[in-house]
Amino acid sequence: MKVPITFLPQNIITHVPEGTTVFNAANWAGLAIDSTCGGRGTCGKCKVRLLQGVNSIAEADRKHLSAAELADGWRLSCRAPIHQACIAQVPRLMTAPKAALLGYGRHVAIDPNVAKVYLELAEPTFEDQQPDLQRVITALDKEGYSVRPDPAVWRALPRTLRANDFKITAVVCGDELIAVEGGDTTDRMFGLALDIGTTTIVGAVVDLNTGAVAAVQSTLNRQAAYGADVISRISYTMTEPDGLATLQARIVETINTLFDQLLAASGIARENVYEAVAVGNATMLHILLGIDPEPISVAPFIPTIEEAVTLPASDLTPYPPAPLSPLLSFRQEVGEGAREARGRGVRLHPQARLSTLPHLGAYVGADIVAGVLATGIVRDKDDALRLYIDVGTNGEIVLGSLRRTLATAAPAGPAFEGAQIKCGMRASDGAIEGVRIDDDVHLQVIGATRPIGICGSGLVDAVAQLIERGLVNASGLLARPEDARGRVPDPLVERLVEVNGVRAFLLSAPEDGIVLTQPDIRALQFAKGAIAAGVAVLMTHLGVKADDLSKVLLAGSFGSYINPASARAIGLVPWVPVERIVAVGNAAGEGAKIALLSFREREAAKRIPEFVEYIELSARPDFNDIFTEALAFPSVVRPTGEASQ
Amino acid sequence: MKVPITFLPQNIITHVPEGTTVFNAANWAGLAIDSTCGGRGTCGKCKVRLLQGVNSIAEADRKHLSAAELADGWRLSCRAPIHQACIAQVPRLMTAPKAALLGYGRHVAIDPNVAKVYLELAEPTFEDQQPDLQRVITALDKEGYSVRPDPAVWRALPRTLRANDFKITAVVCGDELIAVEGGDTTDRMFGLALDIGTTTIVGAVVDLNTGAVAAVQSTLNRQAAYGADVISRISYTMTEPDGLATLQARIVETINTLFDQLLAASGIARENVYEAVAVGNATMLHILLGIDPEPISVAPFIPTIEEAVTLPASDLTPYPPAPLSPLLSFRQEVGEGAREARGRGVRLHPQARLSTLPHLGAYVGADIVAGVLATGIVRDKDDALRLYIDVGTNGEIVLGSLRRTLATAAPAGPAFEGAQIKCGMRASDGAIEGVRIDDDVHLQVIGATRPIGICGSGLVDAVAQLIERGLVNASGLLARPEDARGRVPDPLVERLVEVNGVRAFLLSAPEDGIVLTQPDIRALQFAKGAIAAGVAVLMTHLGVKADDLSKVLLAGSFGSYINPASARAIGLVPWVPVERIVAVGNAAGEGAKIALLSFREREAAKRIPEFVEYIELSARPDFNDIFTEALAFPSVVRPTGEASQ
Repeated sequence: MKVPITFLPQNIITHVPEGTTVFNAANWAGLAIDSTCGGRGTCGKCKVRLLQGVNSIAEADRKHLSAAELADGWRLSCRAPIHQACIAQVPRLMTAPKAALLGYGRHVAIDPNVAKVYLELAEPTFEDQQPDLQRVITALDKEGYSVRPDPAVWRALPRTLRANDFKITAVVCGDELIAVEGGDTTDRMFGLALDIGTTTIVGAVVDLNTGAVAAVQSTLNRQAAYGADVISRISYTMTEPDGLATLQARIVETINTLFDQLLAASGIARENVYEAVAVGNATMLHILLGIDPEPISVAPFIPTIEEAVTLPASDLTPYPPAPLSPLLSFRQEVGEGAREARGRGVRLHPQARLSTLPHLGAYVGADIVAGVLATGIVRDKDDALRLYIDVGTNGEIVLGSLRRTLATAAPAGPAFEGAQIKCGMRASDGAIEGVRIDDDVHLQVIGATRPIGICGSGLVDAVAQLIERGLVNASGLLARPEDARGRVPDPLVERLVEVNGVRAFLLSAPEDGIVLTQPDIRALQFAKGAIAAGVAVLMTHLGVKADDLSKVLLAGSFGSYINPASARAIGLVPWVPVERIVAVGNAAGEGAKIALLSFREREAAKRIPEFVEYIELSARPDFNDIFTEALAFPSVVRPTGEASQ
Repeated sequence: MKVPITFLPQNIITHVPEGTTVFNAANWAGLAIDSTCGGRGTCGKCKVRLLQGVNSIAEADRKHLSAAELADGWRLSCRAPIHQACIAQVPRLMTAPKAALLGYGRHVAIDPNVAKVYLELAEPTFEDQQPDLQRVITALDKEGYSVRPDPAVWRALPRTLRANDFKITAVVCGDELIAVEGGDTTDRMFGLALDIGTTTIVGAVVDLNTGAVAAVQSTLNRQAAYGADVISRISYTMTEPDGLATLQARIVETINTLFDQLLAASGIARENVYEAVAVGNATMLHILLGIDPEPISVAPFIPTIEEAVTLPASDLTPYPPAPLSPLLSFRQEVGEGAREARGRGVRLHPQARLSTLPHLGAYVGADIVAGVLATGIVRDKDDALRLYIDVGTNGEIVLGSLRRTLATAAPAGPAFEGAQIKCGMRASDGAIEGVRIDDDVHLQVIGATRPIGICGSGLVDAVAQLIERGLVNASGLLARPEDARGRVPDPLVERLVEVNGVRAFLLSAPEDGIVLTQPDIRALQFAKGAIAAGVAVLMTHLGVKADDLSKVLLAGSFGSYINPASARAIGLVPWVPVERIVAVGNAAGEGAKIALLSFREREAAKRIPEFVEYIELSARPDFNDIFTEALAFPSVVRPTGEASQ
């Protein structure tokens, strides 16, 4: 049951589930109410005046508001659940928040989950025998932070206080006091945004004071040696003794190495990085957290955790846990690879926290939630219908608007990654990444060298151009030279060759020998067919047509490089005007950064699963029919009248 | 500001600080309102009807109560803070709680902080793709438990569920889900109560289902090698490199060895012990928790933590933390003793929690709070004035009633422990533990062997008897033979000897050579003087006289063995009828057991510091005068007319 709330003077009306707080409703509607405590009822800054739908009085209200204010309808918005139609008057922000432009044109107020508070405390006397911890907690309470101290803080406290004349900086992460530092260190506060892909890990160290990215780098996931895709990784954990521990160690190791490079590149100290936000697919995050991913891989495809979690970054250990035995036998009992990682985790500040974003389902993970956050699909105030596709071995698809949003996953297979393609390769030096075919073939090669293979975007381009030239028909068949001759220029006909008895198209100069074979075209056809079928299911479910789409957003390391016109030409995306197809880059990584820089946005991300319906394709009896239909390449004469030739 | 609340139909009236919940007020007044969640607003069982002082409606009220009930004034008592005079109607308990007689005649409802909940869950299907964790959390929520899962639970969950047909037992500790076990294990649920003394550690394994003690044992604190008292232990941490780590390792080691013995004696499995409650003085608990105790030892005597804390029992590591380096160098960098303990802690169930009780001050620790809990000093409904003394190197004193209670610590020195006494020894085989002097000397020796020394209780007896015989005068001087001859029987005169030029009294047969010297008597005089001075300060502060005392409770391993008449005769306790002086045994250990078995009692214990004023003796300019006055032994003719001779 949803109830309406109106915010004045902005006159923004939104509908929220009963019980949502006024603070969260405002946040969801894109309205930043003042707060430093993150909506925990401790800072007292988020007060609003309820003109209608006045709430009962919470304990925190009594602490922060006067009897007169209470009588006038003032309440702390974060303690005021909405149970009936409500009108709330919101005061102007006390301080204009710093903001950064992040993601796909999103304006994000910098309001991180980590806060540093400089405190000058009174030294204890016989008249004031307050224990050290209480002295700090009381001072933080006055500043609006109500925190649970980490045991490491207890331990460090007596020396840190006395070595620094009781002048310290408290480091608060969420509702936990994770560190106390001597003196004023408020200007040094960083976080790590991680996008953990099956193949590639992208990390960014972000200045939590300014929102500036201090360093960003990517690296290959060291799990790659154990399988190319999530299914083969899960198989490894199922078949190898200590398999989970090994893969878990590899990912932690990858992150630590990447983080070392980021620190070196930025000159930032490890101890000043207090939080990581990690996104990735459910399998990657399960393995990172040390959770057996097996049930993700077998019907009915059940993750252990879909919600967002927070834990100490040092507590990333695999199951089963290390035995409670002395160190020497401990070293013998666990595998070589697992040894280093156990009980150590990601080496940020020793008490740093690591948080994830939620998953929508077993195969639509936190990376997609981050992408949805970064592109604002379910947040924008307007009602624009958008389609978000993360193209990869697994194609994740989100379709919708503020009104209603659906998500699904389609098993595309490895063709987009250049795998199982005769001359396929990853997008690195020597890979053909772009193809244009007019009178002859023109190649764009990474590193501007001689081509040595073709990567996913090149493959899509090549097939798209062959379709446009009429050399590949709607069913995916590559023309024979005898059929093409006269219809296309001779240099193209010359390129229609035969390799080991199958039809092929010579892309490169003959001496480089790079060909696109009929099976390659089939592989791409199956890959795009799976995604197109997923899109078709969601569009049918929502009752919308291609014309209704205001934007098609292509995300992921592959989606960012794909040529929008080619994506449309092969039927990977619905036929919309090409300018509506936009590559949004690493939207998942952008989402992780946004979550790192804004606790409000993070809270919004945590609620995305409530707003997005997950459609399980494998549970649909009609999926095979839809898939078969989606295999065909689009006809070259468009229903809109646009002709491509 | 206190507000009154009346509970009906019992008609119990109590006054509580504004903001106290009705549930806590009832608990404090000794009224057990139904609850399984421990007052966290999740089980919905604690509803009461407010006939006066009706509260605003909390979110939990809306979840658990109907609109009609809300209109009738029904509220969840744990969510209902008291802001004005209140009358609450309490329904009869749904289930009569099991209770145990614990401590000093206290009737304690068994209501432990640990709960086991057996769940038979539906297996997931395509129609019900709920993630594993959410499936468990939802089921627990229905049972009234709202919990935060430990990361170890995530990790174990997929395998435990699938290996047990989704039939599991959830182990809840406080508001944390610490484990899931296959099948129904609800009948196996134990806790460990620990009284950590400077010299002796007492441990008891308690059945949390029945309250029965499965095993109890004591052992010497292995820190003893590093100093006899807290000050010498603190010195060790200050002067030795890695001193804190070493002492911390020793105490963890002592506890683990003791626990191993308790498991062997009881036949209970380590994995079924889910929580420890540890009490002890502030120094012992600081070292156990890995906190530098130095500020406790220097004016103005500041502990780092006075409040009760809870942490994983495995997270008992010293400061500074182990470096973040590979295991091999880790082994080299930390001391041999510290190595094993780091990161391992007390080895109960791997996710077991360890909780402490609060301290009242730097020298009145959680052991005294536990003693106050066990003896009910600040809980009893009647207004009886009681004096609680834990006699030891440091004498802790609590004086008061429900109305007002004071506490202080008096530095007695080691005489009561038999140290710095010529023939002093610990209370073990061969120690004289009791002395009676009539025409001659009669000894009670531990183990009924020939005496080899004298322990604290024997020392007190001996001096008391010498005072009664007129052989020690009020100023503490031992009579010379020439002064005694004719006043006492000759055999006693014969015992007045000289040893190395100082006066002495021969206690044993001459061949055993056990003497009490003049300096021994002085040592005892200073020890009892310190405690008597502390008692005098508290009695003056509270404006009460000896006659007002309804009970004098002697606690601690020494207090339990002391002869009440002798304690009175030497002036250790005020002159009250001897039957009012009661040895209460190991009250601290009893308090730990009570806190383990009842979360309500534990909550009450956490609030004891709010009800007890801590008086710092060293801050009083008149203390030396009071101490000097307290040095004298009582006159043998009593003001009450009782004559001892």
